[in-house]
Amino acid sequence: MNRPHSMSFTSITSPTLLLNSEIARANIRRMAGKCRDLGVGFNPHFKTHQSREVGEWFRAEGVERITVSSIVMAEFFADAGWDDITLAFPANVREMDRLNALAQKVKLTLDVISDTAAITLDQKLQHSVRVMIELDAGYGRTGIPAGEKERISRILDVIDASEKLSFYGFYIHAGHTYDVRGRASVAQIHDQTLGALHRLKADWLGRYPDLKISMGDTPSCSMLDNFEGVDEIRPGNFVFYDVTQAEIGSCGYDDIAVALAAPVVSKEPQRREIVVHAGAIHLSKDTVIQDDAVRFGRIAMLRDIKWDAPSDGCYVRKLSQEHGIITLSQEIFDQLEVGDVIAILPVHSCLTADCMGGYLTEKGEYIRMLNWRR
Amino acid sequence: MNRPHSMSFTSITSPTLLLNSEIARANIRRMAGKCRDLGVGFNPHFKTHQSREVGEWFRAEGVERITVSSIVMAEFFADAGWDDITLAFPANVREMDRLNALAQKVKLTLDVISDTAAITLDQKLQHSVRVMIELDAGYGRTGIPAGEKERISRILDVIDASEKLSFYGFYIHAGHTYDVRGRASVAQIHDQTLGALHRLKADWLGRYPDLKISMGDTPSCSMLDNFEGVDEIRPGNFVFYDVTQAEIGSCGYDDIAVALAAPVVSKEPQRREIVVHAGAIHLSKDTVIQDDAVRFGRIAMLRDIKWDAPSDGCYVRKLSQEHGIITLSQEIFDQLEVGDVIAILPVHSCLTADCMGGYLTEKGEYIRMLNWRR
Repeated sequence: MNRPHSMSFTSITSPTLLLNSEIARANIRRMAGKCRDLGVGFNPHFKTHQSREVGEWFRAEGVERITVSSIVMAEFFADAGWDDITLAFPANVREMDRLNALAQKVKLTLDVISDTAAITLDQKLQHSVRVMIELDAGYGRTGIPAGEKERISRILDVIDASEKLSFYGFYIHAGHTYDVRGRASVAQIHDQTLGALHRLKADWLGRYPDLKISMGDTPSCSMLDNFEGVDEIRPGNFVFYDVTQAEIGSCGYDDIAVALAAPVVSKEPQRREIVVHAGAIHLSKDTVIQDDAVRFGRIAMLRDIKWDAPSDGCYVRKLSQEHGIITLSQEIFDQLEVGDVIAILPVHSCLTADCMGGYLTEKGEYIRMLNWRR
Repeated sequence: MNRPHSMSFTSITSPTLLLNSEIARANIRRMAGKCRDLGVGFNPHFKTHQSREVGEWFRAEGVERITVSSIVMAEFFADAGWDDITLAFPANVREMDRLNALAQKVKLTLDVISDTAAITLDQKLQHSVRVMIELDAGYGRTGIPAGEKERISRILDVIDASEKLSFYGFYIHAGHTYDVRGRASVAQIHDQTLGALHRLKADWLGRYPDLKISMGDTPSCSMLDNFEGVDEIRPGNFVFYDVTQAEIGSCGYDDIAVALAAPVVSKEPQRREIVVHAGAIHLSKDTVIQDDAVRFGRIAMLRDIKWDAPSDGCYVRKLSQEHGIITLSQEIFDQLEVGDVIAILPVHSCLTADCMGGYLTEKGEYIRMLNWRR
């Protein structure tokens, strides 16, 4: 119902997520090329775009294996013809029926971090799956702390005794690269992560000569070239990038492939602010710190089927359910009127895309995403 | 696709928004009764639940007029048989075709805060609508600062000269009650707001003897009884309430009608934390400050078709796209295993509901919401 009447970005009437397909395809091409150059496998995460069409852009660059973060996303891409899928989220043993249906259909790799889950999977799976063990090298979200060898060993014992489970290797997500800024700081975290992985590999390579090492946060994969000992990378966000990645240094602002078009509904001269129809339900409430202040997005002017570079001194200050409150420079404030439409570069493109459910491209095509809500 | 296999809340397999219909209906009944007792009109905001079925629970309490915050929500409820709808969001003049279609079908009240919008509406509307002017009495989101009489006057001049527009009255949302805690602080903001409204009413009552005063933040409407000079209230969140409202003092924790059921996928004894499948895409990233820390939800144990009171010392510490990281007390940590399911009381039920797109009730019914994304 939010589809615009024509293909020009400036003619939209309601909040609409714009996608520049050329930028996205260039982002995919660059990362695929880097993997080829480095001799590292490419198993990209599809949680960011959640779209069949964008998936085909990856296939065009030679991608054959994909990563997802939920069973519904795995089912969606299996239906779209992907047959080697990694579910990079700790296995949810309540979903055995769906896991079984999926394992029958595709080559499935599951993420296991407890012997409880491993035992249940061994008992209830009807088909073979590969298991990767997720490690935590300091991020503190999920995964077994890299030093807990006994816990890793308990899972491996279950796998070795199982006819259904086979060990694939270790997986790590160094998500704490998102908390730093600049190449040197990201490289420091990356090197610590690599060190932990190498120690683990040394520990287990005797027992599992084919074990794989898989990693893949977007900052490390975008900025760094040292992936020695890494078998595959699995970044996701790089397909679109966003304000957070530009601030970290993973990309330039001109590499950001998505922007939310938002109609201007009010001008407030005393505050030098505008109100737009684009709220927390459209952008998500994820934040970035810029100039020591919490912000919800940056502002760019729309030109036909493109958006400009973000305007200095212009940002989303506040979001409620449907309202976006935007502080502007005097120059931009003077150019905008009630009834115009502006572009908001999202803080976190994965969440904004999931909020919006689909994209309008510069070619006038509307690309739908997985509709996991139904 | 997230619908569970049976009606017990503890049997769900994937993230599911639970709705206790008895609590919600009691919340509606209480607010409707208060309006009757005070002799104040009730024009509830439907942005929180966005559901036909929940709308019928309001109708059963005598509600005939409703408020929404987008054109797509107005269209949805018009299709559901509501014929007196207030669109409490500054009129988006890019949506004239849809506004015209809606104005033909229902008695429509629009929110106007600029003469630019008023002029466009007058020129392009084909049917009569009522106009309310939104005022800002200190919240700083939308609305004309209550002291800007000239700006108000310019809009009223356009309305008076128009054959399509008729003036309904002034509308105010004192959203800054969300930033304080406790009845006394909410009452202080409410009294300031009432004061501003009374001054305005005095200024304009001579020219518009029938002008209405409309207001309605959930904290004021839940906790206070002084609505002198107010013609109608339009709270929305009270139908479900949430952790934020409980912390403000608008409700007790046992008045919260929704909770997100989340499967436990990992236990981390060193951190006394669990990982659940319930992330930013399910809960939203809205936050509340509790014990001087940023939190994303509170935790309750599930019992068949109910949830317990929230457990002390248990809260959502961190959210990523699909992961929820939950810190627990030792007592609760010891009771939970991988494969269990817990309830998360949301920080902001409006956003969590919009993220999830539907509800499972204790009667085993799945209630769908407006699917604005398609």
